[in-house]
Amino acid sequence: MEQVKLYDTTLRDGMQGEGMSLSASEKARVVLALDALGVQMIEAGFPSSNPKEVELFEQLAELELKQATICAFGMTRRRGVAAGDDPDLLTLVDSFTPAVTLVGKTWSLHLEKVTKVSREENLAMIAESVAFCHERGKRVVYDAEHFFDGYRDDPGYALSCLEAAIGAGAGNVALCDTNGSSLPSQIAEATAAVNARLGERVEIGIHVHDDIGCGVANSLAAVREGARVVQGTVNGYGERCGNANLTTILPTLQLKMGFDVVSAEQLASLAETVHFVDELCNVTPNPDAPYVGRNAFAHKGGMHVAGIEADARTFEHIDPALVGNHRNVLPSELSGRATIRSQAEQAGLELDDEAAARAVEQLKQREHDGYHYEAAPASFELLLRREAGSYKPLFKLESYRVVTEKRAGGEVETEATIKVEVDGERYLRVAEGNGPVNALDRALRGAIVDRYPHLADIELSNYKVRILDEAHGTGAVTRVLLDSADGAREWGTIGVSENIIEASWQALVDSLEYAFQ
Amino acid sequence: MEQVKLYDTTLRDGMQGEGMSLSASEKARVVLALDALGVQMIEAGFPSSNPKEVELFEQLAELELKQATICAFGMTRRRGVAAGDDPDLLTLVDSFTPAVTLVGKTWSLHLEKVTKVSREENLAMIAESVAFCHERGKRVVYDAEHFFDGYRDDPGYALSCLEAAIGAGAGNVALCDTNGSSLPSQIAEATAAVNARLGERVEIGIHVHDDIGCGVANSLAAVREGARVVQGTVNGYGERCGNANLTTILPTLQLKMGFDVVSAEQLASLAETVHFVDELCNVTPNPDAPYVGRNAFAHKGGMHVAGIEADARTFEHIDPALVGNHRNVLPSELSGRATIRSQAEQAGLELDDEAAARAVEQLKQREHDGYHYEAAPASFELLLRREAGSYKPLFKLESYRVVTEKRAGGEVETEATIKVEVDGERYLRVAEGNGPVNALDRALRGAIVDRYPHLADIELSNYKVRILDEAHGTGAVTRVLLDSADGAREWGTIGVSENIIEASWQALVDSLEYAFQ
Repeated sequence: MEQVKLYDTTLRDGMQGEGMSLSASEKARVVLALDALGVQMIEAGFPSSNPKEVELFEQLAELELKQATICAFGMTRRRGVAAGDDPDLLTLVDSFTPAVTLVGKTWSLHLEKVTKVSREENLAMIAESVAFCHERGKRVVYDAEHFFDGYRDDPGYALSCLEAAIGAGAGNVALCDTNGSSLPSQIAEATAAVNARLGERVEIGIHVHDDIGCGVANSLAAVREGARVVQGTVNGYGERCGNANLTTILPTLQLKMGFDVVSAEQLASLAETVHFVDELCNVTPNPDAPYVGRNAFAHKGGMHVAGIEADARTFEHIDPALVGNHRNVLPSELSGRATIRSQAEQAGLELDDEAAARAVEQLKQREHDGYHYEAAPASFELLLRREAGSYKPLFKLESYRVVTEKRAGGEVETEATIKVEVDGERYLRVAEGNGPVNALDRALRGAIVDRYPHLADIELSNYKVRILDEAHGTGAVTRVLLDSADGAREWGTIGVSENIIEASWQALVDSLEYAFQ
Repeated sequence: MEQVKLYDTTLRDGMQGEGMSLSASEKARVVLALDALGVQMIEAGFPSSNPKEVELFEQLAELELKQATICAFGMTRRRGVAAGDDPDLLTLVDSFTPAVTLVGKTWSLHLEKVTKVSREENLAMIAESVAFCHERGKRVVYDAEHFFDGYRDDPGYALSCLEAAIGAGAGNVALCDTNGSSLPSQIAEATAAVNARLGERVEIGIHVHDDIGCGVANSLAAVREGARVVQGTVNGYGERCGNANLTTILPTLQLKMGFDVVSAEQLASLAETVHFVDELCNVTPNPDAPYVGRNAFAHKGGMHVAGIEADARTFEHIDPALVGNHRNVLPSELSGRATIRSQAEQAGLELDDEAAARAVEQLKQREHDGYHYEAAPASFELLLRREAGSYKPLFKLESYRVVTEKRAGGEVETEATIKVEVDGERYLRVAEGNGPVNALDRALRGAIVDRYPHLADIELSNYKVRILDEAHGTGAVTRVLLDSADGAREWGTIGVSENIIEASWQALVDSLEYAFQ
């Protein structure tokens, strides 16, 4: 089977999407998840000198990856500056990444209207920048920006831009539909022309956007015509209408077109991986997403169910398990007992058959209520412990009260009062905080830290809130995800309630209790 | 220019989507909107005897439409029953609609596993059902269910099913990719074969689903090979991953492929029409939707803005006005004075040079503090209004207090107290809520609703929270994004504070104030 590689730009182009932002350590977690999924190349952005990027590239340099290559991203040299004097190119070649992706102009409209660079100077900018990185030992990917627009305007010049990059040592040229303007037929024709002329000299990549809803099909059309690297983002994140959706492209290439992209086991982790990335990005997973959405294999009514029982092909285009999803017919069909027991084993717990059945019931009920344990494994382990009989509560709550007050002067004050019992003894404590959850956290710790000195080591490292039924605004169910760390470990917990304070409290208590199990 | 017709099945297939439901009169409003948009055929569902359908077909019969043909939808006759004795076919021919769409089997796997009908009986069911409706004066559309799966299994039999329908008088045969299993190349190949064999005898339609994210491209591929009627739904509503998205297909056919579908004026009403349908269906418009999403023509500062000012083609694949959308220059630190002034103009505000300079400074300071106006254009407009001198505060805050309490019993209670001043008069109010933001919202509205009755129409439709400096957990800066709607408009606001209550309060106040500017 012929191979096609995935080139993920979630951390660069994906972050251009509305409201997207990830911390350096969240980005590192995305890289690990994509590497585990089998993605071959991961673009991390420009290794600039701002503290956030410095931290990111330091973290990335330390990661032990299975097969993914990290690419640093930058532009061709500035006009009128030697490549070796361009500070951005110097930063790129100094970065730890084995690969560098350089983007440059291809479309004369842009040369005339935007960069005011002559066609010859542009070719020199491409060739010299690629050569500079190549000679310093980098594998160079050349992103031909606006390639398809440029090809339609002037195919000869568009091809000569690619040739400049290839001649200077680029190992891959990515044909970009930067404005998302192209039809599948146009992508196919231009890619075929590039492949005929340059296919023997270079690996061809494709990078498209979804502005006419053809991001997936345009990527597939290019692969049919010889492209062997597909650029895109997890779940199609990206500016405007998004980038090509790698979550859809991966299973289509592998299951429908017969290419070798990742292993079958890796493909079976697709749904879990992309939901994890959604959670990190605080994006509500699209229930209708191809392959991985919770509705993707949903069936209504009699005939479908009868047909599927006779032969699943009648109403399902693939076996959902191949991408880690499942058929969604009757909730009772979700047999989870074996899975639950194996998860309990992983946590060092033993669940007998009855306890496993109770845990499955609990899990169903809680998922129905809005809990979502993928991003909160510590809360899930506590659920299992309760059923296994090995759960140890830290304290018994009598009451808490949180008061937030703002006066005319503008200052905001928050205080929390807490009454708890440990081993029959009552502890009362009041604390201030810069917000209600912080005040509650401090009051609770203040009350019981003498009994549990290790509490002092636990830090809350991240806190995310999402409204589940968005039709009801601030009156709907609130889900809080909390990440904690104690220097040695990191763990995630969850709370769900109509009330954001109560949901936060649940996640907070789970977090502290998990540390003491 | 050659014509392609749109066949909308929002009211039937679209209603299979998760959570979709419309009353009879809402469906009639959809029909009027689609007719005004220029859609040629509108499928209304099966005219059964249940009261809701009776009411719908009565209402539809009364509508005065410009050009749309209403289609009633049903199945081929039952096995072993004469067409003239089949109660559903009798209902169909008795309906007022000039056109009838009949769906029937094409794939022998379904005959064997689901319906247990022989291949010959199936052909007779198709031919006799089509003939029955045709002879009673109906224009008949034949939907060949699972056509593409059937064609791949046994092209001869799939074609003979179409021939049975055509021979009996069907004016259109729609090739259906019912499971959404097909690649664009497979759709193209099969459609070309149908067109070569039957294209002179019948109009060819295409009906696909989006299970591999190729619903749009598959429809376009069929049109390239001779299909001249495209079935689909508004915004791609439908079961699993949805139907082919007519909202994307229409402008692509007309603006990119040169077909004549609707008039230029009708196309310019596209965004408004589909947002109206979203609203009727209680679906949050997809901000990233091709052509019509609010991000579809969004640009971030600097080079993009300069390029667009020089020549819009540099960064826009079409003029957004052609589909009734508009360019959306996103506020960001990169924005300079010129951008700010053009954004102010969009909001109908005039900023002189000094005010623009102050706004740029404000924007920089606020983005540094963690504000992020891309997803909160209403808060951004308020910022501009403050500098332009046209900002009108709703009230003056004296103080608020929010108390959340949980007792041993487990119940959580929240109450908010608020003291505000409007035109020199003090208003005090207390309210309970299911969470602190809900309680604050209710207390504030309770205090001032007599002065501002329109407040009653404003609903908070979405609420998101994110911690900005994730290194500090619950002690870090909190960013709240709030979406609101009043039936006519939707707007987004933002609040940033260490304290989640205060951040929510800011977003809430901005939301209410924006509605009254």
